[in-house]
Amino acid sequence: MTYCVAISVKAGMVFCSDSRTNAGVDQVSTYSKMFRFDLGLERQFVVLTAGNLATSQAVITQLRNDLRQSAPRTLNTVTSISEAADYLGDISRVAQEKHATQNFLASFLLGGQIKGSEHGITMIYPEGNHIRSSKDTPFLQIGESKYGKPILDRIISLNTALESAALCALVSMDATLRSNLTVGPPIEVLLYPANSFDTHRHFRFEEDNDYLRALKKNWDAQLVEAFKLLPQMNWSASEEQADDDAI
Amino acid sequence: MTYCVAISVKAGMVFCSDSRTNAGVDQVSTYSKMFRFDLGLERQFVVLTAGNLATSQAVITQLRNDLRQSAPRTLNTVTSISEAADYLGDISRVAQEKHATQNFLASFLLGGQIKGSEHGITMIYPEGNHIRSSKDTPFLQIGESKYGKPILDRIISLNTALESAALCALVSMDATLRSNLTVGPPIEVLLYPANSFDTHRHFRFEEDNDYLRALKKNWDAQLVEAFKLLPQMNWSASEEQADDDAI
Repeated sequence: MTYCVAISVKAGMVFCSDSRTNAGVDQVSTYSKMFRFDLGLERQFVVLTAGNLATSQAVITQLRNDLRQSAPRTLNTVTSISEAADYLGDISRVAQEKHATQNFLASFLLGGQIKGSEHGITMIYPEGNHIRSSKDTPFLQIGESKYGKPILDRIISLNTALESAALCALVSMDATLRSNLTVGPPIEVLLYPANSFDTHRHFRFEEDNDYLRALKKNWDAQLVEAFKLLPQMNWSASEEQADDDAI
Repeated sequence: MTYCVAISVKAGMVFCSDSRTNAGVDQVSTYSKMFRFDLGLERQFVVLTAGNLATSQAVITQLRNDLRQSAPRTLNTVTSISEAADYLGDISRVAQEKHATQNFLASFLLGGQIKGSEHGITMIYPEGNHIRSSKDTPFLQIGESKYGKPILDRIISLNTALESAALCALVSMDATLRSNLTVGPPIEVLLYPANSFDTHRHFRFEEDNDYLRALKKNWDAQLVEAFKLLPQMNWSASEEQADDDAI
């Protein structure tokens, strides 16, 4: 499996992905799932992929080929993030239908900014349609998304600083790594400051990365401490007392 | 959906379940998913259910009828927790097959103790087979299990005190409630001290329960504080620096 999250706050966007791919237990490999489309000072896109590796690679390859060949429709011709998501969705649907007798589904997160518009992120379903993030839900996830959702729900809002959002993405990834063996390092994180048109604040954390280890250890220890400090319930009370005299 | 968790530590067992049932958005109801089989001083069982409500109710009804009618095979005749799980699995499989043209799957957690043996918990799959908890995995979950797994992974071990295990089950449930609307209160918690043959330490928390609200608020605040105290990454470093000089 895979876990990818994209966060869009006022200050910009954060993208985070793991790198484990498996086709059966004997074929566990490492593939980056983060792809940057640096189209200069007027448009920047980042794509994260989850699902069938062949489909994902076919989609990324076509996005690149279309650009190289200046096809009629490319990431250079789309006029909005939403249109970019539609374009990617069409490519994805065709790639999946080619081999439709089997399950070659893939999902994508696409984010970016086009000069004159605000930055934004989208999630593209295997069916090719997509949704955007919103004020109330400033993040989107694909793959093994549930383990890492509670911390995002608690921390991320539109006003979260970009660096805090990046840190929260790492903590969310850590929760997923810990609870699910099919998600694995290296972890990639990309910070895109709003209106920067620069996707080079890109970080790659190997399993033995010192910072990642310090982060895990610190978070683990703090959670255990926080748990100890929780208000105690009087568990010795007899049956059905909880609603009456709980504390 | 549903979320249920059973924890088996040296000190005993903890069972925790939500009470939301939905068959489509217009039919959201409240049903307890925790069933106690108090068979006296020599055997006690607790069953938690997830999945199709009709199947779950059919299974619980048959467990009770078999006892009432002193059938050849009942929770009173099984000689181990594992045999009890086999028995429940058989009933469940038959109940599901009755209506096999549709998806009426259900999963169960069954735990208990029979005099002369240690207490134990099992998870029964829709197919009727089951697994037990282990030294390394002293808890089992059914339903919407992923949101609440990270905190269990971090806190629960065989040596966890019964009261701490109960508190951790509540925190795990809180993470699930927050991230998934189809899981809802009242929350039920049952503590079974090893060798007590007493399943009456049963608590029911309504949504507006004072303790539950205090717990949520405290945990939320502590997580936000813990997040602030995490070691900071130097996110201003340029590309691909993470592995070299991260901290």
